[in-house]
Amino acid sequence: MSVAPTQQPQAEVIDTDALIVGAGPVGLFQVFELGLLEIKAHVVDALPYPGGQCVELYPDKPIYDIPAVPVCTGRELTDNLLKQVEPFHPTFHLGQEVTVVEKQADGRFRVETSRGTRFLARTVFIAAGVGAFQPRRLKLDGIERHEERQLFYRVKDPAQFAGKHLVIVGGGDSALDWANHFAQDGPHQAASVVLIHRRDGFRAAPASVARMRELCEAMKMQFLVGQVTGYEEADGRLSGVKVTGSDGVTRVVPLDMLLVFFGLSPKLGPIADWGLALERKQVVVDTEKFETSIPGIFAVGDINTYPGKKKLILCGFHEAALAAFGATSYVFPGKAIHLQYTTTSPKLHKALGVETPTFDD
Amino acid sequence: MSVAPTQQPQAEVIDTDALIVGAGPVGLFQVFELGLLEIKAHVVDALPYPGGQCVELYPDKPIYDIPAVPVCTGRELTDNLLKQVEPFHPTFHLGQEVTVVEKQADGRFRVETSRGTRFLARTVFIAAGVGAFQPRRLKLDGIERHEERQLFYRVKDPAQFAGKHLVIVGGGDSALDWANHFAQDGPHQAASVVLIHRRDGFRAAPASVARMRELCEAMKMQFLVGQVTGYEEADGRLSGVKVTGSDGVTRVVPLDMLLVFFGLSPKLGPIADWGLALERKQVVVDTEKFETSIPGIFAVGDINTYPGKKKLILCGFHEAALAAFGATSYVFPGKAIHLQYTTTSPKLHKALGVETPTFDD
Repeated sequence: MSVAPTQQPQAEVIDTDALIVGAGPVGLFQVFELGLLEIKAHVVDALPYPGGQCVELYPDKPIYDIPAVPVCTGRELTDNLLKQVEPFHPTFHLGQEVTVVEKQADGRFRVETSRGTRFLARTVFIAAGVGAFQPRRLKLDGIERHEERQLFYRVKDPAQFAGKHLVIVGGGDSALDWANHFAQDGPHQAASVVLIHRRDGFRAAPASVARMRELCEAMKMQFLVGQVTGYEEADGRLSGVKVTGSDGVTRVVPLDMLLVFFGLSPKLGPIADWGLALERKQVVVDTEKFETSIPGIFAVGDINTYPGKKKLILCGFHEAALAAFGATSYVFPGKAIHLQYTTTSPKLHKALGVETPTFDD
Repeated sequence: MSVAPTQQPQAEVIDTDALIVGAGPVGLFQVFELGLLEIKAHVVDALPYPGGQCVELYPDKPIYDIPAVPVCTGRELTDNLLKQVEPFHPTFHLGQEVTVVEKQADGRFRVETSRGTRFLARTVFIAAGVGAFQPRRLKLDGIERHEERQLFYRVKDPAQFAGKHLVIVGGGDSALDWANHFAQDGPHQAASVVLIHRRDGFRAAPASVARMRELCEAMKMQFLVGQVTGYEEADGRLSGVKVTGSDGVTRVVPLDMLLVFFGLSPKLGPIADWGLALERKQVVVDTEKFETSIPGIFAVGDINTYPGKKKLILCGFHEAALAAFGATSYVFPGKAIHLQYTTTSPKLHKALGVETPTFDD
């Protein structure tokens, strides 16, 4: 996620009519509405999978207010939207954040992501919801200098942790799954694994918790109840963390590598620097095209604001539909675009890859 | 449908916070959004069933652009919305058209329907789509004076046609089903049935067509290809219709009763006379609350207009959500209403009749 210093920019610049920032439900439906108008889209998201906060924050919680869907989970909503956009073959660029958006002399936007993916886009749709999801970080002064060397908030290459003394912090699925993975026999087995969580209770899946307890009993892992309150260095390297237990006693746990899984939290991030008119950290749009203060950049879903705005997914769907029509003047300048209906239009049926039914009068 | 002179006004006046005009998909979703805000609604529709044009015009055609529903028919869409509004127990008043809407001194609206149902409503939501569906009428000068005596566009009481000489005009399901019904043995059997359609081809269900042909072969019904081009009267009564065949010859077919099934077509109707600001027969609304020029009357879905308006069902859903919030200042004056989410709000879970899930941290 975010800026990974080891990633190199790609040489190729992707030319696209529409770039969508955010693969949550509204970003996905933006793909669909653009697709109906024959505008192909690329989609960038900070998370490594589509669905946005729906799958990140409430994948299994029921949602009751999607129109004509009496109940669905965040995951089901995402799956249905992914199915709905299939005919339009969007290209997803996941696990990366849009860092730069700059209008060029020719009216197109130069866009760059944290992984160095580059685009030239005629139109940009910000469907970034509450912002890009970033790992919640350990709040200890100066510890950020060890990031990506000894301190990690996600595992990209498990092999780099094999044979090392690991301290893993957190009580969710990521923390337990990786702790179990590195503790058990296998090619990635660590020299030692210490799992630290602030209490003896976990939000991870019960099976993962059971497996963790087994590994602890087999002396392949150690579990400590406590909070990381400090750290120690030696020769500029991170040598250990200070863990304060519920008894108030602080112990030092030595380590080679520290993995922290505190979950993800959203950040508006670089969008704040693109020169868009903002109001209380929301992007100001009109209600005709949901266009921002920069012509050609649209904002839909929870990230925008206008009189009457309600942060509801169903409102984002409407905004995406009107924004798609708003984009046509940039993508098809001078061409009149008429609304067609998916029930009756042979043109839309072709775009959707379905047959036009014939009816006798 | 429309004004039936034999219907008597009901004595009781129904007091309601919200009256919704139109039971199409957007009217139904208006029930839901009001329900979430604890506003109970009564719903009036000209059709004898909910669903509006979705079930009247395309019950079996697939719709592809309902967000998160990759494909559904008009009927399925309606069924899902009816299921979604179940927790809020709306009261439907079907087969009647709203004829009068008048603001009273106390700010409430006096509403009356063509069947004499009367309401006092704090807020009114016009979700009337393309207008109230009315039967397409026979276009012959002066024939309307026989309506509801010898000329009928719908069958309310089949018994009144038993033992009579009937002429039935049309080629759809209604025409064939009623022709078959009155031609066959049974308590409603007519003295004679002549079915007239402009061509020997039908849009009715194949089984109904097959049954019609059987009854013709059994001499229980006669089928004529032709168009009704005139009528004859005797002593002020309708005595026959002139039918012009494809051969150009016009014959007179004598009758007691004439039943015409040319389908339904929408008409804006009395809404045009309520004093609302209109633009090209559309009701003008703001985009903050989708309120009309008369405070307390909202308009949502295909019937309204505003800059950027697209006549899409999904846009009507958004409009219904914001209009519901707009209504709170009339229903709960002085009370601040905050947006709550169906995923997390115990208050909304109670309203929806579902359990609030508990999650370990």
